[in-house]
Amino acid sequence: MRLVYFNGKYVPENEAKISIYDSALMFGDMVFEMTRSFNKIQFKLDEHLERLFDSIKFVQIPLKMTLNEMKKVCLETIEKNEPFFDKDDEHRLMINVSRGPLSIYKEVFDGILEPTVVISDFPLKWTVSGMGSLFDTGINAVIPSQRAIPSHLLEPKIKNRSRLHYLMANIEVSNWKGDNNWALLIDPDGFITEGTGDNFFMIKNNKIITPEPRNVLRGISREYIFQLAKELNIECIEKNIDAFDVITADEAFMTGTPFCMLPVTKLNGINVGNGKRGSIFNQLLIQWNENVGVNIEDQIKTWSSQTNQNKSESTTPYQFKN
Amino acid sequence: MRLVYFNGKYVPENEAKISIYDSALMFGDMVFEMTRSFNKIQFKLDEHLERLFDSIKFVQIPLKMTLNEMKKVCLETIEKNEPFFDKDDEHRLMINVSRGPLSIYKEVFDGILEPTVVISDFPLKWTVSGMGSLFDTGINAVIPSQRAIPSHLLEPKIKNRSRLHYLMANIEVSNWKGDNNWALLIDPDGFITEGTGDNFFMIKNNKIITPEPRNVLRGISREYIFQLAKELNIECIEKNIDAFDVITADEAFMTGTPFCMLPVTKLNGINVGNGKRGSIFNQLLIQWNENVGVNIEDQIKTWSSQTNQNKSESTTPYQFKN
Amino acid sequence: MRLVYFNGKYVPENEAKISIYDSALMFGDMVFEMTRSFNKIQFKLDEHLERLFDSIKFVQIPLKMTLNEMKKVCLETIEKNEPFFDKDDEHRLMINVSRGPLSIYKEVFDGILEPTVVISDFPLKWTVSGMGSLFDTGINAVIPSQRAIPSHLLEPKIKNRSRLHYLMANIEVSNWKGDNNWALLIDPDGFITEGTGDNFFMIKNNKIITPEPRNVLRGISREYIFQLAKELNIECIEKNIDAFDVITADEAFMTGTPFCMLPVTKLNGINVGNGKRGSIFNQLLIQWNENVGVNIEDQIKTWSSQTNQNKSESTTPYQFKN
Amino acid sequence: MRLVYFNGKYVPENEAKISIYDSALMFGDMVFEMTRSFNKIQFKLDEHLERLFDSIKFVQIPLKMTLNEMKKVCLETIEKNEPFFDKDDEHRLMINVSRGPLSIYKEVFDGILEPTVVISDFPLKWTVSGMGSLFDTGINAVIPSQRAIPSHLLEPKIKNRSRLHYLMANIEVSNWKGDNNWALLIDPDGFITEGTGDNFFMIKNNKIITPEPRNVLRGISREYIFQLAKELNIECIEKNIDAFDVITADEAFMTGTPFCMLPVTKLNGINVGNGKRGSIFNQLLIQWNENVGVNIEDQIKTWSSQTNQNKSESTTPYQFKN
Amino acid sequence: MRLVYFNGKYVPENEAKISIYDSALMFGDMVFEMTRSFNKIQFKLDEHLERLFDSIKFVQIPLKMTLNEMKKVCLETIEKNEPFFDKDDEHRLMINVSRGPLSIYKEVFDGILEPTVVISDFPLKWTVSGMGSLFDTGINAVIPSQRAIPSHLLEPKIKNRSRLHYLMANIEVSNWKGDNNWALLIDPDGFITEGTGDNFFMIKNNKIITPEPRNVLRGISREYIFQLAKELNIECIEKNIDAFDVITADEAFMTGTPFCMLPVTKLNGINVGNGKRGSIFNQLLIQWNENVGVNIEDQIKTWSSQTNQNKSESTTPYQFKN
Amino acid sequence: MRLVYFNGKYVPENEAKISIYDSALMFGDMVFEMTRSFNKIQFKLDEHLERLFDSIKFVQIPLKMTLNEMKKVCLETIEKNEPFFDKDDEHRLMINVSRGPLSIYKEVFDGILEPTVVISDFPLKWTVSGMGSLFDTGINAVIPSQRAIPSHLLEPKIKNRSRLHYLMANIEVSNWKGDNNWALLIDPDGFITEGTGDNFFMIKNNKIITPEPRNVLRGISREYIFQLAKELNIECIEKNIDAFDVITADEAFMTGTPFCMLPVTKLNGINVGNGKRGSIFNQLLIQWNENVGVNIEDQIKTWSSQTNQNKSESTTPYQFKN
Repeated sequence: MRLVYFNGKYVPENEAKISIYDSALMFGDMVFEMTRSFNKIQFKLDEHLERLFDSIKFVQIPLKMTLNEMKKVCLETIEKNEPFFDKDDEHRLMINVSRGPLSIYKEVFDGILEPTVVISDFPLKWTVSGMGSLFDTGINAVIPSQRAIPSHLLEPKIKNRSRLHYLMANIEVSNWKGDNNWALLIDPDGFITEGTGDNFFMIKNNKIITPEPRNVLRGISREYIFQLAKELNIECIEKNIDAFDVITADEAFMTGTPFCMLPVTKLNGINVGNGKRGSIFNQLLIQWNENVGVNIEDQIKTWSSQTNQNKSESTTPYQFKN
Repeated sequence: MRLVYFNGKYVPENEAKISIYDSALMFGDMVFEMTRSFNKIQFKLDEHLERLFDSIKFVQIPLKMTLNEMKKVCLETIEKNEPFFDKDDEHRLMINVSRGPLSIYKEVFDGILEPTVVISDFPLKWTVSGMGSLFDTGINAVIPSQRAIPSHLLEPKIKNRSRLHYLMANIEVSNWKGDNNWALLIDPDGFITEGTGDNFFMIKNNKIITPEPRNVLRGISREYIFQLAKELNIECIEKNIDAFDVITADEAFMTGTPFCMLPVTKLNGINVGNGKRGSIFNQLLIQWNENVGVNIEDQIKTWSSQTNQNKSESTTPYQFKN
Repeated sequence: MRLVYFNGKYVPENEAKISIYDSALMFGDMVFEMTRSFNKIQFKLDEHLERLFDSIKFVQIPLKMTLNEMKKVCLETIEKNEPFFDKDDEHRLMINVSRGPLSIYKEVFDGILEPTVVISDFPLKWTVSGMGSLFDTGINAVIPSQRAIPSHLLEPKIKNRSRLHYLMANIEVSNWKGDNNWALLIDPDGFITEGTGDNFFMIKNNKIITPEPRNVLRGISREYIFQLAKELNIECIEKNIDAFDVITADEAFMTGTPFCMLPVTKLNGINVGNGKRGSIFNQLLIQWNENVGVNIEDQIKTWSSQTNQNKSESTTPYQFKN
Repeated sequence: MRLVYFNGKYVPENEAKISIYDSALMFGDMVFEMTRSFNKIQFKLDEHLERLFDSIKFVQIPLKMTLNEMKKVCLETIEKNEPFFDKDDEHRLMINVSRGPLSIYKEVFDGILEPTVVISDFPLKWTVSGMGSLFDTGINAVIPSQRAIPSHLLEPKIKNRSRLHYLMANIEVSNWKGDNNWALLIDPDGFITEGTGDNFFMIKNNKIITPEPRNVLRGISREYIFQLAKELNIECIEKNIDAFDVITADEAFMTGTPFCMLPVTKLNGINVGNGKRGSIFNQLLIQWNENVGVNIEDQIKTWSSQTNQNKSESTTPYQFKN
Repeated sequence: MRLVYFNGKYVPENEAKISIYDSALMFGDMVFEMTRSFNKIQFKLDEHLERLFDSIKFVQIPLKMTLNEMKKVCLETIEKNEPFFDKDDEHRLMINVSRGPLSIYKEVFDGILEPTVVISDFPLKWTVSGMGSLFDTGINAVIPSQRAIPSHLLEPKIKNRSRLHYLMANIEVSNWKGDNNWALLIDPDGFITEGTGDNFFMIKNNKIITPEPRNVLRGISREYIFQLAKELNIECIEKNIDAFDVITADEAFMTGTPFCMLPVTKLNGINVGNGKRGSIFNQLLIQWNENVGVNIEDQIKTWSSQTNQNKSESTTPYQFKN
Repeated sequence: MRLVYFNGKYVPENEAKISIYDSALMFGDMVFEMTRSFNKIQFKLDEHLERLFDSIKFVQIPLKMTLNEMKKVCLETIEKNEPFFDKDDEHRLMINVSRGPLSIYKEVFDGILEPTVVISDFPLKWTVSGMGSLFDTGINAVIPSQRAIPSHLLEPKIKNRSRLHYLMANIEVSNWKGDNNWALLIDPDGFITEGTGDNFFMIKNNKIITPEPRNVLRGISREYIFQLAKELNIECIEKNIDAFDVITADEAFMTGTPFCMLPVTKLNGINVGNGKRGSIFNQLLIQWNENVGVNIEDQIKTWSSQTNQNKSESTTPYQFKN
């Protein structure tokens, strides 16, 4: 069975549990990262850890472990789990850090109160196995009634676990007719922000445009699109955009660590551009494939056919099921 | 060792843990209640459970357990734990319900995905042992920069675990000079809402006033104040109030399940009324004492002297420590 | 063929048309009323006309016709049309008033620029013939992403024709699974306002509650519920309410001139109360029936079975069809 | 008499009317364009039609006619009307598209429900004949109390007919002392948006600045200013601006299809710059004149002297008259 | 010459000046009251002083003088000035309190830094001499573009001197055609708040309604209307109201210390009710007259005819002059 | 004794006072500038005066004095005061302009109502003498609950005296533990704006970033940073930033006329970057020193040691003292 790093020890995956008295559960007071590998090599692990340490700093968790120590543990965790992974599996790390148990419960923990650090390693395929067909059909991005919470009320740039509103958005969108519906939140000003675990991009006149990084998590894949665009000599900018901009765009897509990028072909059921996956999407994906030595689309499609999952339950990464 | 009900079993308190793949930890997707006893008898348990089931309904957790079944488990949990409680201890139940593990992890759970129900029983005294002196000094309510999140963005009337912003407010207030500082949040409209685990009341011209129940948890103790006021023939109303109203009020207080009620004598360091605990506070507390057969103030002061805790770390229930 | 009053003349219904140069079409600058009869007798015609003249005053249309003159024309229009109505038809008047053609087009109108007044009479049954089953199933009120426009930006208390956002809300809701979905808009503060042609009520602890009349049309049927409640000795109040309040209510319903009242049994697919039509709804409807001498539910159900309409296209009065 | 294209037929202008049961009149659910010619040649007709089809897409009107078909009809309409135009007249097309009659009225239309397309051709001079003197005095832009509606509530980038609030703004400004007052709306954030039918530009340090295209119609003339600026090698950017920026600007102007561009010399009665028409305005206008082969200012001044209109009623294109 | 109390001394009125280094001038950091007499007897002086001490408390001025001491000084000031007042003059006290000079300037003040207290006595007639005709014509309340600042940004319930926005509103309204225009501000939510020195009331169905006391100064005259209404057995309530409510009201009026009450007959030029002074206004004014033994209207009309002021410059108390 | 220019005369500094009937005191209706010298030479005096005249224009003070006349008076004031300045003193001018006394008080001023112009000259050292140590420790910028008022409600780009909210922010921050706390306001959207008398900059990846100049005073020192950055070939841009951006920045600093620039090493007690003064700060300061021929840091540190002030009362320029 896979092993999970838990505050200095490795425990079986099904015993990787956090105390009900931990601040993580009492307040949703936990920050985290999800990473992935390409050909078993972690992608942008440093960037993920730097963002994690920014989150830790912002919520003021007095963590003693350094970034380098954590990186070592990440790699060790992968090493320990590789035997339990298939040959074609990729390693999806989940790194959770909380403040630890609240002080009024210290007696329960023999007086020892320290931050909680949990690092698990999970085959990426389970996260993305329902998404194969989305490369062809594209996502229908649906703007729910649930708004993104502005950053001054709850900071989305911190990758945190107080995300009930994301789940509520997913539930809401699950009521729409059709498959392939993913939530795309607007903030109270009406600006497009992000999905409930993914960043949004649109293309207009050969320019790649993504929302200003105010009320969104600044995704590592999002950053990578900037890099790919540079390599391809395509302009890529941050800008306030709204539903009208998306509907009159030429193409659109989502990015996320597990699936890298997926086309968005509709917004609220209305075609984005001509309602088909676009050419700049293709260029970016090909470049990404080349850079990492993996055909991302093929890999996910292969996993999708293997795992044979009920499609309706897996077209979004963290979907609510009715 | 105390025992915790966990999905049909009783486990030792230090093993009461929730999987890292549970929606509770992934999304802060857990609802809960905290109750207390007076003389070992649970207070308003039905009301707490009804509110819990409202929360469950709102976030759409497909729980099979009924309210009555849960009540039975609550009482059973207390019975099992009474041997580990001191004679003068009160039972503080914490009831947590989450949607359970996310479906992409079902393999880890042998394909069984069901809501998570955890009921723990904890001596109330540890929660309140630092609050004894506050009955005399009163709380200095501090309005932090962190605003309450409006209900349409994240519903505070659901007692939920996506509360990182409450912790951030507590951290902010911990930077103020002096002890006895508790956060009191205003919403983006500037209206007083609630503390980070307590409701607020003020008295003006012998009328008890509490914020409209829009952006607050509608506390069970809050409801009880309405009942006490009725018994005492004092008018008690809900109204939009702001900082000016509080500073020009005659008295103010906070309510919360663990401590029942505590005087608020200052707002941002400015005296509320004459800066002293007021007479309507006294009347309400005396009535409460009589109704439940416990001298609430004495009980907490006794615990405070017993537990000998460092005062600075315990004047708020879920305080952040610098 | 039915006749329509048009600025002093009666024209066949299919020639009741407004110039493309009329302010009504240039700016959506038209105010209106819809009324209905019970047993061919107009209901609350005075109240409708008073509201119309309030709208005219607010948008400053320099209408010369007085309220009494207009009433006379209304009754005359009905008289002229009665021959074209079935025995069991009811008269649904639609009264439109605009500022008339813009002055730059005066040449087209031989220099004569005057307000446009159009009064048409239409068999009520076509408006409500798809709603019969809703008395049994109830409406699923759906909160769309489209928000109500606050009154200081566009005054909903004026019954006006600048309502593209209402249509957009209807389109959005037509994407939800299931029949029986009606839009229920919240304003940017998150408060329940109204449907796109109907007012909302909920019942909690035997008290009837409807949103504060700020960002809603103050419906004549809405006012009538206050009267019925008085007759039945049930308290009926105006209050800010939100989705949580609705979901935890005991019952809910919508009111509108054509259908009078219909139960709301779900909000966003979640049961309101036990998800069934409630007893206070029944009491109000019975009282209404008695007062007007018509069994409203039976009448609509009869029409529904007669007209044999495709149910999916008619469960809302002004529904968008995909 | 001039002829108007109406759903496949040509009708006399004074019979170009839309049914009271059309969605255009029921909901303000109509999108439109206004174009103009220079020397009888349509200007930017393709751009206007592309924007119209974006509007149609956004509001989801199931129009069968293609852009090219519509263009043909536009040109045909002009051809048919040219005989009724004076030698020095220009052709102002107005193209209206609505969803057509609501389905509950289909019986009135013999069961045929289709979108409504109306294209009229009107001598431009009547729209602008009161504006001649404004080239000299400049406009006094007045910020009314009426705010622009943010795009997420009602999309101004759709050229639509739900514009009662624009008319209300015009009425409000008509109460100001003096002639030459045009409404210039700010949005609820206080940013300058647009007039009630025109876009706004200011110049500061030789840079042309226009509001971010969020809460404004993205005018075709507005776009043309960008092109002219490029030809003249003057920087032209989009930026959030407010009243302070305007008052401390060097120059300002409005653009609109009928009049092309007019100087703004005051804001709320305060001089913009030195309160005179500026040199960059002049450069742009000269370039525009050259590009289209018409002296725009002279043409309008000539019409103004010909038509002899009462100045006070025509200094704004769609002005409210007290 | 009249004498002004200034920090313990009496100085001639034209030497009543505050240092440029005083916090009053550096930050607008001064709170104040204006009172009036009837027949030379101060009206509600205690209430004014209580409100002043609330303001002092809120802005945390460390004033040593007590309320009673200040009252004594007020009366002494009147006594000293009575010789300079006409027989029919009334005493208008202005009481200003600031924090005093900023500490970095203490050297200039010989190291002595103390709050500044200034009490001046001025013949009331000069404040109201232009208002006589308004009792007949009524005020045209104009809603300017300038919004009231919400209380959480700048507390209007503190009678303070940071009121540049009030002056800006007055300037804006001075641009409207006609005399008799007074600014009536709405807050960013669109609710009626107050004038720039007066409170607003409307009457609907014999009920007196005034805005909720959130974003307004809670005027002493406003409070007195509640008392008069009680004496007259007319219901008087606080409620959120907007422009539509005012236009459809039966009557409206303003209150202010200098003029007591004045009818509002128009809003933005639209009649309130029938556009005439109303009967409840009359009842309230008669009662007020009786209670204080002064015919308020006659007194002001007499002063107006005496002082012979240019009407246009004095119809508002602190009017901006173009 | 130092002399102050006052409406055409020179008066001793302690007699530089403004009438209580001046609009400056009645409404906070005064605009101003503060300048400083380097080696007795005024710095950017023209820019300060231009900004002042923009302020005068915006608030519409009918000042007759021209910019050049005012400049002459400024220089004359310095000349007259130089004898009272130490050799190493710098001249800090404060220029105040108000509308003058309100017209109802004209009798007090012999009927002469004219704008008030006051120019004082003060040794700069008193303003900055407590700031010496901040060059080493850096400022802890604290975001108070008090929000910046958005520009459409009260224009901060006008350097005006209605700034009670700035003082309230200072009072609030004075309650924080530790010295070195300066208020840094966010606006209601959560964007960083400015301090209560200083502008904010941060550095990220060698790029200097300062808030968009919407809700801030556009400081002369702020402008100078752009110039210095250009000289040093460092990119310097305006951008919306929030607390997260600051905490994850590399460096930060404040600018203000008296102290030029000071490092910000913490935000709400959290390190900005590594919590130390940064290298780009140093480059900018060195360049500034060179350009003006004064070692700014040394000058202030020298004054700080000379004046021997209580540190706690002088670390902010206009600090509130508890």
